[in-house]
Amino acid sequence: MTTQTLNAAILGASGYTGAETIRLLAHHGHVRVGPITANAQAGRSLGDLFPHLHPFADRTLIKAEDVNWDGVDVAFGCLPHGASEELLGELPPHVTVIDLSADFRFRDPELYAQVYARSHAHPDKTRTAVYGLTELARPALQAKPPVIACPGCYPTATLLAIQPLVEAKLVQTEDIIVDAKSGVSGAGRGLKEANLFCETAEGLHAYSVGNHRHAPEIEQQLSQASGAKVWVNFTPHLVPMARGELVTCHLKLAEGASVEDVREALAQRYQDESFVKLAPKGASPDTRWVRGSNLCILAVFPDRIPGRVIVVGVIDNLVKGSGGQAIQNMNVAFGLPESAGLTMEPLFP
Amino acid sequence: MTTQTLNAAILGASGYTGAETIRLLAHHGHVRVGPITANAQAGRSLGDLFPHLHPFADRTLIKAEDVNWDGVDVAFGCLPHGASEELLGELPPHVTVIDLSADFRFRDPELYAQVYARSHAHPDKTRTAVYGLTELARPALQAKPPVIACPGCYPTATLLAIQPLVEAKLVQTEDIIVDAKSGVSGAGRGLKEANLFCETAEGLHAYSVGNHRHAPEIEQQLSQASGAKVWVNFTPHLVPMARGELVTCHLKLAEGASVEDVREALAQRYQDESFVKLAPKGASPDTRWVRGSNLCILAVFPDRIPGRVIVVGVIDNLVKGSGGQAIQNMNVAFGLPESAGLTMEPLFP
Amino acid sequence: MTTQTLNAAILGASGYTGAETIRLLAHHGHVRVGPITANAQAGRSLGDLFPHLHPFADRTLIKAEDVNWDGVDVAFGCLPHGASEELLGELPPHVTVIDLSADFRFRDPELYAQVYARSHAHPDKTRTAVYGLTELARPALQAKPPVIACPGCYPTATLLAIQPLVEAKLVQTEDIIVDAKSGVSGAGRGLKEANLFCETAEGLHAYSVGNHRHAPEIEQQLSQASGAKVWVNFTPHLVPMARGELVTCHLKLAEGASVEDVREALAQRYQDESFVKLAPKGASPDTRWVRGSNLCILAVFPDRIPGRVIVVGVIDNLVKGSGGQAIQNMNVAFGLPESAGLTMEPLFP
Amino acid sequence: MTTQTLNAAILGASGYTGAETIRLLAHHGHVRVGPITANAQAGRSLGDLFPHLHPFADRTLIKAEDVNWDGVDVAFGCLPHGASEELLGELPPHVTVIDLSADFRFRDPELYAQVYARSHAHPDKTRTAVYGLTELARPALQAKPPVIACPGCYPTATLLAIQPLVEAKLVQTEDIIVDAKSGVSGAGRGLKEANLFCETAEGLHAYSVGNHRHAPEIEQQLSQASGAKVWVNFTPHLVPMARGELVTCHLKLAEGASVEDVREALAQRYQDESFVKLAPKGASPDTRWVRGSNLCILAVFPDRIPGRVIVVGVIDNLVKGSGGQAIQNMNVAFGLPESAGLTMEPLFP
Repeated sequence: MTTQTLNAAILGASGYTGAETIRLLAHHGHVRVGPITANAQAGRSLGDLFPHLHPFADRTLIKAEDVNWDGVDVAFGCLPHGASEELLGELPPHVTVIDLSADFRFRDPELYAQVYARSHAHPDKTRTAVYGLTELARPALQAKPPVIACPGCYPTATLLAIQPLVEAKLVQTEDIIVDAKSGVSGAGRGLKEANLFCETAEGLHAYSVGNHRHAPEIEQQLSQASGAKVWVNFTPHLVPMARGELVTCHLKLAEGASVEDVREALAQRYQDESFVKLAPKGASPDTRWVRGSNLCILAVFPDRIPGRVIVVGVIDNLVKGSGGQAIQNMNVAFGLPESAGLTMEPLFP
Repeated sequence: MTTQTLNAAILGASGYTGAETIRLLAHHGHVRVGPITANAQAGRSLGDLFPHLHPFADRTLIKAEDVNWDGVDVAFGCLPHGASEELLGELPPHVTVIDLSADFRFRDPELYAQVYARSHAHPDKTRTAVYGLTELARPALQAKPPVIACPGCYPTATLLAIQPLVEAKLVQTEDIIVDAKSGVSGAGRGLKEANLFCETAEGLHAYSVGNHRHAPEIEQQLSQASGAKVWVNFTPHLVPMARGELVTCHLKLAEGASVEDVREALAQRYQDESFVKLAPKGASPDTRWVRGSNLCILAVFPDRIPGRVIVVGVIDNLVKGSGGQAIQNMNVAFGLPESAGLTMEPLFP
Repeated sequence: MTTQTLNAAILGASGYTGAETIRLLAHHGHVRVGPITANAQAGRSLGDLFPHLHPFADRTLIKAEDVNWDGVDVAFGCLPHGASEELLGELPPHVTVIDLSADFRFRDPELYAQVYARSHAHPDKTRTAVYGLTELARPALQAKPPVIACPGCYPTATLLAIQPLVEAKLVQTEDIIVDAKSGVSGAGRGLKEANLFCETAEGLHAYSVGNHRHAPEIEQQLSQASGAKVWVNFTPHLVPMARGELVTCHLKLAEGASVEDVREALAQRYQDESFVKLAPKGASPDTRWVRGSNLCILAVFPDRIPGRVIVVGVIDNLVKGSGGQAIQNMNVAFGLPESAGLTMEPLFP
Repeated sequence: MTTQTLNAAILGASGYTGAETIRLLAHHGHVRVGPITANAQAGRSLGDLFPHLHPFADRTLIKAEDVNWDGVDVAFGCLPHGASEELLGELPPHVTVIDLSADFRFRDPELYAQVYARSHAHPDKTRTAVYGLTELARPALQAKPPVIACPGCYPTATLLAIQPLVEAKLVQTEDIIVDAKSGVSGAGRGLKEANLFCETAEGLHAYSVGNHRHAPEIEQQLSQASGAKVWVNFTPHLVPMARGELVTCHLKLAEGASVEDVREALAQRYQDESFVKLAPKGASPDTRWVRGSNLCILAVFPDRIPGRVIVVGVIDNLVKGSGGQAIQNMNVAFGLPESAGLTMEPLFP
């Protein structure tokens, strides 16, 4: 355990992801928030963009190219995909990269090119990046890899729910149905009509049906876990709330496996974890149980259809699904207490 | 086509279902709102309970036992299950019963007893009641049956999406997954902690997973349509909005059937309908497209998993899912224009 | 009373105001929706922009300059200020102009120039336009003036609450405090960060404190009513809801006047009105009582501070505060039934 | 500065106030959460009532009469008024009472009897209790009084905004208008129709106009500050959000005073405070700037009406308006760091 104080750069602080990372670092105890960049807003103060970040209100946003990297230990990449890898791929080697974008999530640059419609400028770095779903990647993270790719918010909740079951061969890998629901902050702070209050309040719709970019990411991890190519149905919906994400995984039990086996497998897998919990039997987890926290709560239900099981998972998409998991990954990589900066309880109501 | 003016009684007007039925009848043109009952609130004015129902604000609520049934043509049952069949089962035979509760939805009184944990006092009436999913039951409705059972809100959207596909043998009846999402008004106006603003806003959860009472109702209809017992996964979620319901149906295509066949089948099935529409290809229907209206909008999407299809349906649970469909059923049964009272456009934003 | 069918053009149908006007005209009975313009979206279908407007989904949006004005009776101007008067000021004289923008609300072009920071291109037309607060302007409207300026949403609710009291000299014109609250649709469909769901949900703030453009509009009307220059405190707040507007008017009673006098004055002033109502004594009107309707509900309360009175008013900003009042004005100007197209009951919940 | 660990009892943990106090104490550092009571729920676990309180999920709720007071240092009273003083008035003298109810807020038991319609069982204790608006009562709190009465949520925001101005004679004490807006959590977790989602979402109304119980509380403090009886207009509104409170204070400047004097007075009064801040000039504080935190943000605006000023204040009603201020008062009374347990940044979005 170290007693060092890390110097962290935040790259791309004009969006919700960057702001949340800064909020969580405010009282981390082992980290100093160093350079904060936002190229389009350079020169403005952070308080101007995010008045709630009171301790940093007077910090001036700078351009990424103006960062002095001497003495910076870790860089949180909170940029859009594309912009992210182009910047992060060129950082000095003493800086550990923790990327919250999609740019280093795929081991196969060809798959990345296909899904994100652009070729990767640093294919070698993506081939060797560690996919930082903390609870399922701890050994690799402890080796302090140069690039940690934080999973997408949906894959975080989905894989925490399903991956141990696939590994234990308790569920079939055919016809995995992931019906997902997210609050609007998942869509970012961009100026799109679809994100306006009047277009999102008091209503609901599915989006990117059959072609959401998080599907191949889930498939990559489940294929690796099962040893064979897995397809998943991934169907996200936009829900009129700011934060929170819930995945409802409709699964077929493997021959001979029971619902109770599934519950038991998850309970054992996560029994020593601080941030992944199983709900009491019969209770249905609500995103309100985790809002503002780094928690993921899972629950297992029998299906009416014999031979099937339903696994539900909830996270706060901006914490465990983004800034919180990024900090958790940093903590593991640098040998800090894994919960540092992440001990806040959920905010309810 | 008749030019009569029907006299309608509203039984149980203290809940959202009764209020919505009255709202829609206000400018129906062929119906006069007659006696309005609410036993626990008898003596109060309707405006006291529902200030938005301005034209009826001064109407006094009476007890059901005080209704003079002479001259009443039709009774809308807006009572809780149990209370509903006990009252409606005893009405004079000249009154056509349109029940919005669950009490006459099952043909089999044993199934009702099992699902609703009480024995039915009028088993013969439930055996012969017409299940009033209007578009799929028009001939039976036109015969003006004594009892019309309006479908539950979830079964309305689900069956409009799936039943024609089962009938046409375009989808398999195994592993039908219906992942559903509803606004809070679906839970009624009862004083439950779970319905408080602070317990429902800014969050989401699944409920009644594996044991919701609308599942056997959907199964009854699909079993009848397919000629064999069908099980469905039905997993509802409570969404922080007042109105609106969306069902996401994850289905396996039948051998040889294509996604395009499914779309075409629905398009043809509903081509002459006023209230059921197919969204433009690629568009994902939003509950905002139907809020306050009697519409149901469907859409068909290919799944990432080969051999599968996703069908989405949206309704306003208080209109097509309740009071609106009840009025539509009355219109059909009495030979009135089917759209009478139901022509309002959706309210957006 | 005429039996004609008017041909109405909608200018600027890409915003909520235009869409709401079209929604209300759908079942008006005396109006045909003619050309629909939206210059930046010309060539697209209306259903593409507003899927809820089902009967007009296939209508193609055209550019304003491509409208054939022959046979058009009335033009609803739903454009931003500036664009509005430049277009509407040049229409052929046989077209009655009903403008929903701010461009013809001021009798004094200098005041307009000062408040909206641009000079008026048609000062004569603004000098003679009729300020269409229907209930307080009926004689002038019945003369079918060439230009009817529909009041702003806030002035509509405020003036209906206060103007009769100023006219009757029941309240003092010093220190009129109007603390106003509006839903987000009042800010339009423009892509501004402040209108995003995440920036408006679960929170509240005041805006344009001391300098909102509706203040001079209220002052113009109250000054005219009182015969002397009146200043008002007008302090609007943005509330996390899509529709609805509430004004809380904190007033000093005139010497000798009582709270009961105020209530009585409003009751008498509006006793024959279809759309302006006084709430039952003691009841506090909610915007839910009017949502989706053309109603304005007022209520009068004694203040704790002796000699003062509080008047509250609620409207739906998109109906009585915009499209609905515009149609009401058309109805009056053309001798149609004043309620035509406006009979829908409020949507609740 | 002490290094002790206090043992705190929470009395009445079934409501939002109690839950929030526990949430904030979770990581306080100087406090152990001891007995937790909830008489009507005794025997249940806290996690059953509040699943978000993970660290205390297994704690069993007990009856207040079953608390062993030995070793308890401080009791947080989170009970309804009436129940609160009856219990707290009888505690052993070694327990410092911090009451979050209204029971000890009035120095005059007669006023209490009049406002709360019941006579006080411990009039001597209310006469000597300290009104714990921390920033304005620090010396009295530092004396560790036996009973600290935490102010109501509305009075907290209002008095922080106005009291220093009254003390400095910068504003007149006639015609003080406080137009207030609160989220629904302010109404508690009680089962009232008015608190249901469907009755509070997408709408707004004023309530308790002219007779809210927080008005006499504000008047007591301002009268004391000014040395003469002060009346205030206090008009609260219920806003569709869970947390947050905003007061808009419409004030007359004292003879010779300017808006800038007012701003300067507040800036100086709070310059050394951790939790009370002045917004940047021109910025309008949003409840989102403080959600989940113990902050109060104030802003000063010129009115359009000459000689007047508008002061806006925002707080989180459950933190600075309730559990947070209670803990802040404990910190001051026991000589702990004033920010202990209260350092979390606001949650946004």
